[in-house]
Amino acid sequence: MNYLGIGVSPGNVPVYHGDNLKVIDRRVRVTELVLRCIIFGLAILGAILIGTDKQAKVIFSIEKIAKFTDMKALVFLVIANGLAAAYSLVQVLRCILSIIRGTVLFNKPLAWAIFSGDQLMAYLTLTAVAAAAQSAVFAKLGQTELQWMKICNMYGKFCNQVGEGIASSLIVSLSMIVLSAISAFSLFRLYGNSKGKGNAI
Amino acid sequence: MNYLGIGVSPGNVPVYHGDNLKVIDRRVRVTELVLRCIIFGLAILGAILIGTDKQAKVIFSIEKIAKFTDMKALVFLVIANGLAAAYSLVQVLRCILSIIRGTVLFNKPLAWAIFSGDQLMAYLTLTAVAAAAQSAVFAKLGQTELQWMKICNMYGKFCNQVGEGIASSLIVSLSMIVLSAISAFSLFRLYGNSKGKGNAI
Repeated sequence: MNYLGIGVSPGNVPVYHGDNLKVIDRRVRVTELVLRCIIFGLAILGAILIGTDKQAKVIFSIEKIAKFTDMKALVFLVIANGLAAAYSLVQVLRCILSIIRGTVLFNKPLAWAIFSGDQLMAYLTLTAVAAAAQSAVFAKLGQTELQWMKICNMYGKFCNQVGEGIASSLIVSLSMIVLSAISAFSLFRLYGNSKGKGNAI
Repeated sequence: MNYLGIGVSPGNVPVYHGDNLKVIDRRVRVTELVLRCIIFGLAILGAILIGTDKQAKVIFSIEKIAKFTDMKALVFLVIANGLAAAYSLVQVLRCILSIIRGTVLFNKPLAWAIFSGDQLMAYLTLTAVAAAAQSAVFAKLGQTELQWMKICNMYGKFCNQVGEGIASSLIVSLSMIVLSAISAFSLFRLYGNSKGKGNAI
């Protein structure tokens, strides 16, 4: 690894000396690792909370069981969480390997792959959370104009656990959003042109 | 504006000569302008399609009117489309100004502002589309397990128009996703370090 740290930088592009760059790189890598670990843990937690959620209720002597498969949006959220957890596990291993080796990402195809994966995961998890949250709002509040009745007064425990799962998944998707910005930084700085002199638009 | 085009680039970071950079910049700016115009047009179209949607139906001699305010997700989508249209209008003017002046974005605070705005808009529009699409699925298919009946067989014309509005909004959010990648490129290449010699992680 080689930080020459000689920055030719006219205009308002700052000079990055070796030490400065090293500090930024270390911070980026540590933040990335922490976020990926958080995502891994919370995605599994979210999937388990929703996937194992079940509540039986006897209505007019007929037992009815509420389970997450009753709502397609919850199935989608469990799948999205599963994918996010698996993806994060692979990325955590890569991050640890990178920190042990002390290497920095300067490989464009790999940077593109990580950037694309992170973007895809951020949008996927956010879409899943939005759809599940919308379903949860209907379940919680109902929609009287359409005569869709609220079901959370019947299945209170079920709804609470779904709510916890959605909250966990929301943190996953917000962390993925931050990560996708980090991987965008790691990728596009490889296209840096320190020679350009700029104007303010 | 000054493209010196002298690239010092060891490892696998390619050399960008002045002409090459100019071509990339021109393509990026034209793509950005086209996308922002598409977003402006389709966001307005989506908002109008959903916002003006209304269908009256006489059920047991009582007239019932379906309108977009019956579903909070559609209200959210109309607002998101309105914000996207207003934001894009400002950005289109900035792009045109930038093309007329022939300037390139090298101002970090402005690049950060555009990056943040684009990211926010991409996630906002995608969330709104996902929530509205989930509501539309319930309206179209119902959810028999929860005794939520489908309403699109009663309000066919209303549902079709909402569907068109959601399709239009989906293109808006996909375009915003591409734009947010472009603005990430425009921002983070300012942090480029052409001096780093890289390893493959």
